Amino acid sequence: MKSPSEIIELMLAGDAFSNGLGMEVLHIEPGKCTIRMQVNAGMVNGFNIAHGGITYAIADSAMAFASNAHGAQCVSIETAISHIIKVHINDVLTASCTTLSRNRKVGIYEVMVTNQSDELVAHFKGTVLISDREW
Amino acid sequence: MKSPSEIIELMLAGDAFSNGLGMEVLHIEPGKCTIRMQVNAGMVNGFNIAHGGITYAIADSAMAFASNAHGAQCVSIETAISHIIKVHINDVLTASCTTLSRNRKVGIYEVMVTNQSDELVAHFKGTVLISDREW
Amino acid sequence: MKSPSEIIELMLAGDAFSNGLGMEVLHIEPGKCTIRMQVNAGMVNGFNIAHGGITYAIADSAMAFASNAHGAQCVSIETAISHIIKVHINDVLTASCTTLSRNRKVGIYEVMVTNQSDELVAHFKGTVLISDREW
Amino acid sequence: MKSPSEIIELMLAGDAFSNGLGMEVLHIEPGKCTIRMQVNAGMVNGFNIAHGGITYAIADSAMAFASNAHGAQCVSIETAISHIIKVHINDVLTASCTTLSRNRKVGIYEVMVTNQSDELVAHFKGTVLISDREW
Repeated sequence: MKSPSEIIELMLAGDAFSNGLGMEVLHIEPGKCTIRMQVNAGMVNGFNIAHGGITYAIADSAMAFASNAHGAQCVSIETAISHIIKVHINDVLTASCTTLSRNRKVGIYEVMVTNQSDELVAHFKGTVLISDREW
Repeated sequence: MKSPSEIIELMLAGDAFSNGLGMEVLHIEPGKCTIRMQVNAGMVNGFNIAHGGITYAIADSAMAFASNAHGAQCVSIETAISHIIKVHINDVLTASCTTLSRNRKVGIYEVMVTNQSDELVAHFKGTVLISDREW
Repeated sequence: MKSPSEIIELMLAGDAFSNGLGMEVLHIEPGKCTIRMQVNAGMVNGFNIAHGGITYAIADSAMAFASNAHGAQCVSIETAISHIIKVHINDVLTASCTTLSRNRKVGIYEVMVTNQSDELVAHFKGTVLISDREW
Repeated sequence: MKSPSEIIELMLAGDAFSNGLGMEVLHIEPGKCTIRMQVNAGMVNGFNIAHGGITYAIADSAMAFASNAHGAQCVSIETAISHIIKVHINDVLTASCTTLSRNRKVGIYEVMVTNQSDELVAHFKGTVLISDREW
């Protein structure tokens, strides 16, 4: 069976979107993951703040890595995100994913997205289906 | 007061992320918006399917345009998306936003994201706060 | 295999909570269900409007009946509800559940809860896991 | 200005639904609340486990008390609940609400619902609008 880091290496190798956004995995273990990325001028919306898709993407990647690090392939089916404070160009976002629950079929994860001042900018919760396919 | 199309033109002018993803607004009116984009190789995750942030981004932009087209600036506070079927490279996504409810302070929107075969690939619901600032 | 109405009859026979609230099933077919109930003085919260648990309960029951009417036992794992307008004593609520998607493992349902004036008082979305147990 | 306990006393005085379910407030302070209730035979659904409306109701009440305890009247607009493990008759549920964020207009709250064995049976997140009306 592959180690969490081997699995994340495999996932990241093909994850063009996370790589394109500059996501960096700071920590990975089964059920836990921390990712960091910096917001740039290509990530803003019409209000000149980070597009909701940016905070969503880093949180969703953090959940994908945390849930797949157990070894079985997991796919996200239901997610929700609260946008709490505005994110600006050059802000550094850190997404920390933890496990709320996991059984044989389903995992539920929570991700706190903070900025460089440790303010909570977004709260994410997601549910994944656990498949029989091993990485 | 600006027309819906003038507002969306203003928003898109600054919306580097939506533009970078190649979103094209097919229809806009107060409370309603349809956007189309094609999935490319830069949008996939480690499973070689579209990253969740892609379907989220097009749905979130559709809600932003539909809710702001009334004239008052609106900011998204709470959103949820169900990922229903896999999205592949070259798929053409269409996000259609409609209004579930809107009062003086809050708007609630629903977005159906379909592919080129008219299959529902994602369902999005979002809540926006309506500000006093006019576009 | 049991018919949708036989399944709902079985479910309602044991559903003390839905019965206690006075829910009445107006229509049932696989993937679709309509329920009606009237709000009474025992259902209000400290604002003298219907407790959020009341609109949630009728919507959740509508999804349970719609999703189980296919024959396989389904259990709700993730749900969200938007409270849109206040519900008062004597209001008559109608919850109409439809299917957003259903595959072998998971079903996603939407419920519109309206009052006697056909106003949308709440919007509910839920995800159920489909088991191998038949009713 | 009223104290948190005075506000909760006022709210509970009119909260027929929470009282009918036997909810007992164990702790209240601005932004934080803990409630306990025991599941009885009147609270089950057709699977003879607690109806989703039961865990939702205790979580929603915990958020209502925690958010209103600041003094300003708050109304829930958007909530989501994950049903994690089955709840049975005679289980004792404890709902602990904490604040994820709160600004002038909006509060976001998280509620963990546990059983007598300290297992997480449900996770709730909710958003409230903060009004200008003081209790």
